[in-house]
Amino acid sequence: MLRTVMVAALASTASLAQAQDAVFELDAETREIAQSLGQTALASDLAYEITESLTTEVGPRLAGTPQEARAREWAVETLERLDFENVRVEPFELDLWTRGRSVYEEVAITAPYPQPLYAISLGGAGATPEGGLEAEVVFFDSYDSLLASDASADALEGKLVFVNDRMVASRTGEGYGWANRKRRDAWVMAEDRGASGLLIRSVGTSTNRFAHTGMMSFPEGRHPEIPALAVSGPDADQIQRLHEMGETIRINMRTYAGWRGQAMSGNVIAEIEGSEAPDEIVIIGAHLDSWDTATGALDDGAGVGIVTAAAKLIADSGHRPRRTIRVVLFGAEEVGLVGARAYANARMEDGTIPNHIIGSESDFGAREVWRMGSNVGEHALPEIAAIHRELQSLGVVPGDNEGGGGPDMIPLQYMGVPMVRLEQNGEDYFEFHHTPNDTFDKIVPEEMAQNVAAWTMMVWLLADSETDFRPQAQQNAASE
Amino acid sequence: MLRTVMVAALASTASLAQAQDAVFELDAETREIAQSLGQTALASDLAYEITESLTTEVGPRLAGTPQEARAREWAVETLERLDFENVRVEPFELDLWTRGRSVYEEVAITAPYPQPLYAISLGGAGATPEGGLEAEVVFFDSYDSLLASDASADALEGKLVFVNDRMVASRTGEGYGWANRKRRDAWVMAEDRGASGLLIRSVGTSTNRFAHTGMMSFPEGRHPEIPALAVSGPDADQIQRLHEMGETIRINMRTYAGWRGQAMSGNVIAEIEGSEAPDEIVIIGAHLDSWDTATGALDDGAGVGIVTAAAKLIADSGHRPRRTIRVVLFGAEEVGLVGARAYANARMEDGTIPNHIIGSESDFGAREVWRMGSNVGEHALPEIAAIHRELQSLGVVPGDNEGGGGPDMIPLQYMGVPMVRLEQNGEDYFEFHHTPNDTFDKIVPEEMAQNVAAWTMMVWLLADSETDFRPQAQQNAASE
Repeated sequence: MLRTVMVAALASTASLAQAQDAVFELDAETREIAQSLGQTALASDLAYEITESLTTEVGPRLAGTPQEARAREWAVETLERLDFENVRVEPFELDLWTRGRSVYEEVAITAPYPQPLYAISLGGAGATPEGGLEAEVVFFDSYDSLLASDASADALEGKLVFVNDRMVASRTGEGYGWANRKRRDAWVMAEDRGASGLLIRSVGTSTNRFAHTGMMSFPEGRHPEIPALAVSGPDADQIQRLHEMGETIRINMRTYAGWRGQAMSGNVIAEIEGSEAPDEIVIIGAHLDSWDTATGALDDGAGVGIVTAAAKLIADSGHRPRRTIRVVLFGAEEVGLVGARAYANARMEDGTIPNHIIGSESDFGAREVWRMGSNVGEHALPEIAAIHRELQSLGVVPGDNEGGGGPDMIPLQYMGVPMVRLEQNGEDYFEFHHTPNDTFDKIVPEEMAQNVAAWTMMVWLLADSETDFRPQAQQNAASE
Repeated sequence: MLRTVMVAALASTASLAQAQDAVFELDAETREIAQSLGQTALASDLAYEITESLTTEVGPRLAGTPQEARAREWAVETLERLDFENVRVEPFELDLWTRGRSVYEEVAITAPYPQPLYAISLGGAGATPEGGLEAEVVFFDSYDSLLASDASADALEGKLVFVNDRMVASRTGEGYGWANRKRRDAWVMAEDRGASGLLIRSVGTSTNRFAHTGMMSFPEGRHPEIPALAVSGPDADQIQRLHEMGETIRINMRTYAGWRGQAMSGNVIAEIEGSEAPDEIVIIGAHLDSWDTATGALDDGAGVGIVTAAAKLIADSGHRPRRTIRVVLFGAEEVGLVGARAYANARMEDGTIPNHIIGSESDFGAREVWRMGSNVGEHALPEIAAIHRELQSLGVVPGDNEGGGGPDMIPLQYMGVPMVRLEQNGEDYFEFHHTPNDTFDKIVPEEMAQNVAAWTMMVWLLADSETDFRPQAQQNAASE
């Protein structure tokens, strides 16, 4: 209702071009509060403490397991202790996959030179036959060379397919999607051609001897029968060297991974209610679940700490923003954005998607924020620019208007919710991500405080705004 | 014989004080050859290739196992292929300890918050009872606080003793010995007081989630009955945080480690025979064995590469030095210098200890050499200083005359053999050492080439020298 009025007002006072050229001036008091919140956040270790608590008192929390259920209990207790409003759990079901016996999976080269490998099943993989399997390796230097190989031949029958693509480090983590193709999709071709299993060089940039897990893709809901594992970078180097020597490599493995039917997960929701427009929601998210091999400090304990602390610092400022700040700690992100889809579907059902004014997620570690991007209607860019100017003192540069708001925001963005994104320095994120090495000691408190300061200021300014950030065509459609 | 003559000559021409003040001038041609060897070594990747071959074609090689036997075969083949002379194996027996089933040992916190730990049995440890054990943790912030605790109390009965000392990083690795006290000795007190097991924070400086193994001490030959494990730094942090929260911590573990009777090991010996004084030996060493959790690239594949390449580059120079260069690739270093003691004992028996003019070992990774130290008679210091001057162009600074020549040189040094030492940059050595992360990719070829250059020049100058490096009192005793 309110939004319709705002849209009409905007449409009557400014053309799109004028809006783009316009300099948006934030209210002086609002700016003063933002700067004060930034200073408070820089001096606060609340996010760090929240992350320490989650990673210590819950630890690993794979989606659908009792550990993830305990993470929800922890979240409810923590959010209530911090005086959030409307704290609640929205449960949902998922297909449960677990590793089976333990995180220490047994994989070894048996020929030509016996030695153990550090490897880990990919999420969704099948198990070896009872007692394990041993087979010869067929080496592919890349996923593309597997795709290009002769599909009619039976060269893979009973063999272990090894795919060796490397990922390159970058500040933005951009190489991840490309490198992940082999993780997500290579199993299908391996299984269809009779391979007894799949091994890939770990996605990620680490030269440490940790294997990088992560979910596979399941076209048409099909689950793999074969085991599929990532081996650490140094172990992949070893396999590559042996292959280049012309050796026939045999590998033995014994894994217990598999799908275990239905289980419960859930999203934990809490709010700081808006003073003037409580139905308008600025949604900020992170995910509660983690992989099982680590305590998920960077992925995504840090995000839980950052968005929770940002909202709490605003609540404690004595200045309640116009709009409601909704913190959503999603379940089951790692296993396919299951919580994010459940949340978006529930909002479709209760008709409150249009109430979501803008959204963002923190899910890329705990290093400093260096860029602010958005995906909003062009009329709103002057205001985004004005918000960015408030963050410049933290060293944040302006980004584009083309990206998303983070993985758990994808379903909401599909449904038309505008997004902002605070990009974090991710140069070494994929050194730790999805490995046993994603632990609390990797977080630098000062970097995290800068991150929280950027979030606190941005969320305050968005929540105290009167602007509808949706593209105007979409606004007009909504107001019809 | 020759040595007696030299000693007499020295004694007649210079007092000790004069020798100390004297400037020793190396022969111009010898110096020229040294500089040329240095340049050749800087451009050579022979050491790197040897290390790659050992770590790829043998891999892990725990003392007394078939893998260590294969390393000896590899060494004989490699040294013969490189045209070394007198290539041979000197076998010896040892008490075999192995980890049992695999390098992936199962350890987990069961209370208050269940989660896996990354831990590894210490060398020499016992196993858990079949089926594993679960017990409460008794936390000691340091080995000293365990020592200071009330030995008459039964507070440790049936418990798991946890000892939390931290090690500090340094260029020289000096913190290692102190931090190792808990690794070596804590089990005795734990076992004597009825503890069901011992856990220590990993020795080493890594914040990576790798546990650091290493041999324990066995006073009077006693072997532990109880399991004894190191947990990785981040896991020790977790235990410490839970302890500081006042929680009672319970840990479950299942290990299979133990002593398995007698087994064979051996030292591999090869020579570049001296042109004028073939009975005079410059001994340079490294060790062939490694821990079982990694391929032992830094410890001590690199050393094998460095000393082998140094001798080979001299042999290929067209200038054969006066003295014999003896390369000894020791077996069973990690499990208590067993090969080094066997070698020294064999030389006692064959009466050739006095033939060992000077010795040195490379066993501290593959980074650059930054300091040259010695332990020689004071009359020989001017010559050591002259040798050092030749290495200054590599950035090597002078050290003292008080140290040793490396772990496997200790028994020879006890028997009076003079020592030199090329100290390597060890700032991050204990990030990798004795963990699964000690793999070939950690070696930087350019750093290793500088290291080999320093070795090649030094060994050439020592092998072409006419000086007896022993203290003069010792020389006089030997000549009587």
